[in-house]
Amino acid sequence: MAENNRFKKNYSGKRNAKSDSAKSFSKKKTLKKSPQRTKKPKEKAKPSIKIAFLGGLNEIGKNITLFECEGDIILLDCGMAFPDGDMLGVDLVIPDFTYIEQNIDRVKGMVVTHGHEDHIGGIPFLLSRMNIPIFGTPLTIGLLGNKLKEHNLFNSAKLNVVHAGSKVKLGCFEAEFIRVNHSIPDSVAIALHTPAGVVVHSGDFKIDCTPFVGDMIDLHSFARLGNEGVLAFLCESTNAGRPGYTATEQTVSAGLDKLFIDAAKDRIIIATFASNVNRVQQIIDMAHKYKRKVAYSGRSMVNYMSVAEELGYLKVPENIIIDIDMLDRYPREQIVLITTGSQGEPMSALSRMAYSDHRKVMVGEGDFIIISANPIPGNEKSVGNVIDELLKRGCKVVYEGMYDVHVSGHACQEELKIVQKLVNPKYFIPVHGEQKHLRKNAELAQSLGIDRKNIYIGDIGSQIEINEGYIKELAKVPAGKVFVDGLGVGDVGSIVLRDRKHLAQDGLIIIVASLDVYDGHVISGPDIVSRGFVYVRESEELLDEIRAHALDILEDCADRNIHEWGTIKNRIKDDISKMITQKTGRSPMILPILQEV
Amino acid sequence: MAENNRFKKNYSGKRNAKSDSAKSFSKKKTLKKSPQRTKKPKEKAKPSIKIAFLGGLNEIGKNITLFECEGDIILLDCGMAFPDGDMLGVDLVIPDFTYIEQNIDRVKGMVVTHGHEDHIGGIPFLLSRMNIPIFGTPLTIGLLGNKLKEHNLFNSAKLNVVHAGSKVKLGCFEAEFIRVNHSIPDSVAIALHTPAGVVVHSGDFKIDCTPFVGDMIDLHSFARLGNEGVLAFLCESTNAGRPGYTATEQTVSAGLDKLFIDAAKDRIIIATFASNVNRVQQIIDMAHKYKRKVAYSGRSMVNYMSVAEELGYLKVPENIIIDIDMLDRYPREQIVLITTGSQGEPMSALSRMAYSDHRKVMVGEGDFIIISANPIPGNEKSVGNVIDELLKRGCKVVYEGMYDVHVSGHACQEELKIVQKLVNPKYFIPVHGEQKHLRKNAELAQSLGIDRKNIYIGDIGSQIEINEGYIKELAKVPAGKVFVDGLGVGDVGSIVLRDRKHLAQDGLIIIVASLDVYDGHVISGPDIVSRGFVYVRESEELLDEIRAHALDILEDCADRNIHEWGTIKNRIKDDISKMITQKTGRSPMILPILQEV
Repeated sequence: MAENNRFKKNYSGKRNAKSDSAKSFSKKKTLKKSPQRTKKPKEKAKPSIKIAFLGGLNEIGKNITLFECEGDIILLDCGMAFPDGDMLGVDLVIPDFTYIEQNIDRVKGMVVTHGHEDHIGGIPFLLSRMNIPIFGTPLTIGLLGNKLKEHNLFNSAKLNVVHAGSKVKLGCFEAEFIRVNHSIPDSVAIALHTPAGVVVHSGDFKIDCTPFVGDMIDLHSFARLGNEGVLAFLCESTNAGRPGYTATEQTVSAGLDKLFIDAAKDRIIIATFASNVNRVQQIIDMAHKYKRKVAYSGRSMVNYMSVAEELGYLKVPENIIIDIDMLDRYPREQIVLITTGSQGEPMSALSRMAYSDHRKVMVGEGDFIIISANPIPGNEKSVGNVIDELLKRGCKVVYEGMYDVHVSGHACQEELKIVQKLVNPKYFIPVHGEQKHLRKNAELAQSLGIDRKNIYIGDIGSQIEINEGYIKELAKVPAGKVFVDGLGVGDVGSIVLRDRKHLAQDGLIIIVASLDVYDGHVISGPDIVSRGFVYVRESEELLDEIRAHALDILEDCADRNIHEWGTIKNRIKDDISKMITQKTGRSPMILPILQEV
Repeated sequence: MAENNRFKKNYSGKRNAKSDSAKSFSKKKTLKKSPQRTKKPKEKAKPSIKIAFLGGLNEIGKNITLFECEGDIILLDCGMAFPDGDMLGVDLVIPDFTYIEQNIDRVKGMVVTHGHEDHIGGIPFLLSRMNIPIFGTPLTIGLLGNKLKEHNLFNSAKLNVVHAGSKVKLGCFEAEFIRVNHSIPDSVAIALHTPAGVVVHSGDFKIDCTPFVGDMIDLHSFARLGNEGVLAFLCESTNAGRPGYTATEQTVSAGLDKLFIDAAKDRIIIATFASNVNRVQQIIDMAHKYKRKVAYSGRSMVNYMSVAEELGYLKVPENIIIDIDMLDRYPREQIVLITTGSQGEPMSALSRMAYSDHRKVMVGEGDFIIISANPIPGNEKSVGNVIDELLKRGCKVVYEGMYDVHVSGHACQEELKIVQKLVNPKYFIPVHGEQKHLRKNAELAQSLGIDRKNIYIGDIGSQIEINEGYIKELAKVPAGKVFVDGLGVGDVGSIVLRDRKHLAQDGLIIIVASLDVYDGHVISGPDIVSRGFVYVRESEELLDEIRAHALDILEDCADRNIHEWGTIKNRIKDDISKMITQKTGRSPMILPILQEV
């Protein structure tokens, strides 16, 4: 890794450029070694490989896996997760990097499977603490580079482009990048050729025999690996509960075509994931067919499309893209607006349109709005609210299962089974999903004949050791959720969240008084300040009672020579709290503040 | 209404008791008048009827409709709604009763369609302000009576039992109760025979030709009304987006039977809605068939079942029910536990089991858990979390579409169309649902040939006037959401919620100082107290900076003879806020508190 094969140098390599491997690694070995190794497994006892799950199990997002073999460590992906509803005020959640930091000397690099936030979103926070070289396909590295620029980490980062079908050597690991279908181009699975055997990680994938853009998943490579012998298969589980197959992207094209005809006299507004480059390509092609101009709305949409176009993943006909400021210059039936906000996110472009809060786009009758995405669990309500607001304004809205305007990016049960059969591993490890998804995926593997004792369902922090003879669970490694709130990383924890929840529930009452430094009697106050408790003007009587009661307590303490502030404050807290609960049925936070004068 | 036909008097009337009408209304008229009236419409010009929508439009829940004809007013239902995620700390939401209060002299009574919270949950709050006589079927009145006891309103309430198939006279209105199928027994639609014509309100309904308990929806009455002529049909819209038919309850029985066989060696725990008496009946029958004992878990489950059994709506074989404390005395394969918590509510029995917080039930391997309900929009995530926790403990869990263990209580598109065709109204008014549901239902009516201009989609507070010649929208009436928080009704409004949201997002920082009453210089403090902002021990430096900055501002104000506290506080707020945002990227609430000494 002496030579720093920088992202900028490879940035010009368009997706058609072929390279058998990342070209600039000084310690590169020949590709033939792995097959030789797997052909003669009995020569000597193989070592074992350890796998630590630092994220992505029993949760959606925050995917990160650590592999260790013969003292070398590599990482696979480093994503972020969105906060749950009870993580009040938290912007995003990243993995705990402690275990990586403890072993940083042995970390040879990170391979990334694709450019989604749940796979690369944690990388800026990791790189701000340790500069690990990163290897990914051109679009993935392009999107990551863009993200690192926002964090002022781009210049120091060691980004390396590897094309699907190539391999890269990292310590004793050789990582083979295998093309898969997914909802973002340039997605790969990774086969790790190690002295312990071959371990395959599926990344996120589906099987699309007729993708709208690009080639079908490289099933041949999965088949080859299966033939040669795979020790363990880490397989994504997102759609393991869904029977059947994910429909091909072609059905979306057909669905969109119908809708473009229906909406012949309307302005078309389509919301989708900013990262779904192929979907945007479909929309642009359809706009071209029906002679409409295309504008983008939403910062992430603009960012993604500029990277995708620059790297050749988005083919845009000339003169079709217009700036969002130019919308008014065209009749509405000649417009397609592609926007973020398909998840009903409050600050997104589509939400702003729905609530008349978008600076540039007013929606109403004559707008035909297509939501080309499914709500992620937890977002159903906010997506529903946005749809209702749009309908109230007189827009036509196409959503959910109404038409074929979306297909998932993840493999359903039949696809999972096909790839599991092709890879034919000794050990099966479901990853990426909540417990129900992991279990479903494990059940699929069992139904294909894998022994239950060769299937491992882990948790965040689990570590296992496997070799040809055994799979065993080791002691847990440090792992968990680190909260990012504003500029702070990790400074919001359970106590802060507990206080936020308490404040959110019933607000707070502050009781302030200045006490005489000599005898403890009240010199000024007590004053009562409340926020989020009751509407103050209508509850003056109650606040007066609280003030009188607090004064009684303070004077009583002074009379009885109780000067220990902790004791006084606790009495105020307990007594006032009891009184308020009795009178209002609520439990606001009570904050007594005393000053000595 | 001279005679107070009290609930208690009729309480003994089991469901098989037939009565052609509520027996004790002094002003009762003969039933024949309405048909005569509709047969000779040209005799004289008919008056109009006004309908005010006080809830249930553009929302799920809080159903309440007000009808006014020839000066008389009646109400139909009075429900509550659950708070949205952004109504922090709010326990439940009820309608605004202002318009009813303004016209209370003319209110003749309220008819209720069934005993669900979204139809009767607001009644205690209404009755605590005005004592309106209420008319409903036996189970509905039984459940309502139970609820009123909890609010100490039972003794004063005027509750009247009316059987399905009967009529009751309220001023110029004659309300006909028509049996429908739904997920709670004794549900009815209401046909209002008025001088202006017949207005039908569907209540909540579905068509089940083979219900598990009780009879099929009384389609004959809908047909008769349609033949005689219906002015307006207010039709529920909950499932208007779902094609096809709601499956019969019999499919649930078949599904449960299969699962009872699968779970032969396990304890069975089934979560369902406490109000779904028929589902509980199915489960009890299945337990009886497989020789298992049944226990209830969850306060509302116990309450509902005791009322339902007392009134004869639940038939319980002898010696099958055991107390939850007796669970340990039976082998697990001889137990069925019926529990609340099918919506993943944090404090519900099933959630407590999942998080090992249930005082009496520990779950794990050997437990077979069936969630016999679908998540209500907004609850998907919490239901999912409960399932994951149960799976992690080794339980088997059956949920969602995995088996036929639940059918909806609401009509899908084909059922809606059948009833709409039978009723054959002049005006169609979709009710009960969000905008998307109302629109879908309107589209169905249009597809059946109703003119778009005879379809009215309203909002909360809308009022319309209709007669044979026209439908017109009147000025809005007072209506909205009133928040119940603890014992307080209506004392939490937008300002309090805004503060709670602010506090939830980034917490707060309090800056307290005592100032010299003469020169304004700082005598004590400033002290900094923060909650929900950062973990204080790790951020002492930041808090020190805030303190120093606040002191500078206060002293600067004193030096410059600025003694107006509003001005000083605003400067502290602005400056400290700016400083904190810059340093942390967060915007906590800043609360400066000054005291004069």
